[in-house]
Amino acid sequence: MAIVYQPIGTVHTPYQSPDGMPVQASRSDNAPGTVVLDEAYVEGLADLEGFSHVILVCHLHLARPYRLRVTPYLDDVPHGLFATRAPARPNPIGISVVALERIDGATLHVRGVDLIDGTPLLDIKPWVGEFDEPEQVRLGWLEAARERKRESDDRFCTTGDEP
Amino acid sequence: MAIVYQPIGTVHTPYQSPDGMPVQASRSDNAPGTVVLDEAYVEGLADLEGFSHVILVCHLHLARPYRLRVTPYLDDVPHGLFATRAPARPNPIGISVVALERIDGATLHVRGVDLIDGTPLLDIKPWVGEFDEPEQVRLGWLEAARERKRESDDRFCTTGDEP
Repeated sequence: MAIVYQPIGTVHTPYQSPDGMPVQASRSDNAPGTVVLDEAYVEGLADLEGFSHVILVCHLHLARPYRLRVTPYLDDVPHGLFATRAPARPNPIGISVVALERIDGATLHVRGVDLIDGTPLLDIKPWVGEFDEPEQVRLGWLEAARERKRESDDRFCTTGDEP
Repeated sequence: MAIVYQPIGTVHTPYQSPDGMPVQASRSDNAPGTVVLDEAYVEGLADLEGFSHVILVCHLHLARPYRLRVTPYLDDVPHGLFATRAPARPNPIGISVVALERIDGATLHVRGVDLIDGTPLLDIKPWVGEFDEPEQVRLGWLEAARERKRESDDRFCTTGDEP
């Protein structure tokens, strides 16, 4: 069963390659970015500006082929792929929570992006704590490792243009 | 540019149709569900059990064709589609944060599902507050509307089996 999606826009960021790119949005020192939606979808942005944060659902087009055991950016020992946020996944879908500063026509101005410039956008959703914020959270291996490492390297991404 | 994904498993829930299904995971009264991963990917589940919550990224296979202005479950007036969590979207990708109770082989036992039985799974990610939980949140139209309506109806989904 093949599921076929089409990009609805493109994410523009200061990061031309994964070297030195922040690991996940919250770590990115509020890096600015823009999300340019295809004109056909602009009507769907109505009322979005009232939300402080949006979830960008993206196709991680530069992700390398996945492996089921990976050493993530945030640790030095391997973990199961689905226990990590590594971009190289069977379906390389990225979820980034970013701050929405303003919307000009088809362009969203955001802060806190952790995506490579040119990343295809699949969806935009408002971030809603009631849906997206659980209670009584445990973080497994990450609790010990979370402070160790802050920047990504190129272990999961190519720097070329292939999909 | 077509982006092609393959399901990596299936979500099983008590909901055979959208009628009466909870709106988003947090509203679902801790409904139990199982996520059955294809055997080929089981190694990737290592270390996931240490996390209390996971993000299920799914293909909302029963979503109707999208409209750019919709009246969501949680309000009685139309909003821009991207300012809602309506399932009918240009790329009908669902994001559900659920509680992970335990893992038996290829099966994740979860709580708080808001998906229809048989929903194709695209990805599993650990929920990590550092990445997924912003600060100083504003919720736009939803702040006034959030308490109004609790259950979904069939306005976005078909009840048939078509993709």
